[in-house]
Amino acid sequence: MIYVLRLGHRKGRDLRISTHCGLVARAFGADAIIYTGDYDKKMMESVKDVADRWGGNFKVFYEKQWKKFLSSFEGKIIHLTMYGLPVDAVINNIREIRGDKVIVIGGEKVPAELYKMADYNIAIGKQPHSEVAALAVFLDKLFKGDELNKDFENAKIKVIPQEKGKKVVEVNRYKSKQS
Amino acid sequence: MIYVLRLGHRKGRDLRISTHCGLVARAFGADAIIYTGDYDKKMMESVKDVADRWGGNFKVFYEKQWKKFLSSFEGKIIHLTMYGLPVDAVINNIREIRGDKVIVIGGEKVPAELYKMADYNIAIGKQPHSEVAALAVFLDKLFKGDELNKDFENAKIKVIPQEKGKKVVEVNRYKSKQS
Repeated sequence: MIYVLRLGHRKGRDLRISTHCGLVARAFGADAIIYTGDYDKKMMESVKDVADRWGGNFKVFYEKQWKKFLSSFEGKIIHLTMYGLPVDAVINNIREIRGDKVIVIGGEKVPAELYKMADYNIAIGKQPHSEVAALAVFLDKLFKGDELNKDFENAKIKVIPQEKGKKVVEVNRYKSKQS
Repeated sequence: MIYVLRLGHRKGRDLRISTHCGLVARAFGADAIIYTGDYDKKMMESVKDVADRWGGNFKVFYEKQWKKFLSSFEGKIIHLTMYGLPVDAVINNIREIRGDKVIVIGGEKVPAELYKMADYNIAIGKQPHSEVAALAVFLDKLFKGDELNKDFENAKIKVIPQEKGKKVVEVNRYKSKQS
């Protein structure tokens, strides 16, 4: 399982960024997101709602105590930070890890202890940018781009790619079983 | 030149997402971002401020009329949308384009005409996620990851990658000229 741990959500201010973290985690192949910081039912429901309509088994959790969670996590802790080691230098090692992984993303203020608790502190470039971007690019490199072609089972709607315009179809489960 | 056009910024609501779009554009190798929608001086200043401290020649512009801008743009228009063609199918063609490119990203509501104006409508996966993620992954694929190792000239500060913790140094221009 690949979990994403999103640190320090702030209600209101982080609404859209935290939502994007959840959607990116799902779309780029993680199995679940765990939010810490403010408990924000509405924001989490909006991520669950997308997961429900667009398919797959993505899960959304809330965890009050991130430190306790990470201390008892049985698997590797991967922290994405602009201060860490270049992703290209470590991605092959990460890919070979057996067992669960949790990918930790900030958060306005990342506690210093996290750098020590993490098995890997990994930088997606050394420039300031975005936890949303860091998560997407990390997962894309981890899965070598294959995650973008993944089919999400039990989707209620799906996109049919177009050169121009939009095509979204409702998935008729009975029909698709027949074909 | 590679421009990013960020459609329909809304003051307040989109503050953090639009800021992340600007930082991602810069960090992943674009030359400039152009914001449309609400004029938001403070948000644009915050992106410029990062560009100033962390180096390079990244530019930030505002454009009231996106349609007029795109109509007179002399180069290729690349629109990132979950409804478009898979990025893997077109990225090699995009890489070979000579001349300027503008990468267009939404915005809550993307006008239907944009799909027709665009030379390419490209999907970073067929799932709903984030314009910040789409932009980062697109640029990372365009530059084959090399953008992450780029040095930004005239930086006032830079990161020295660490296995644990943070190391940021102030760049002493006189000294660095000597060494």
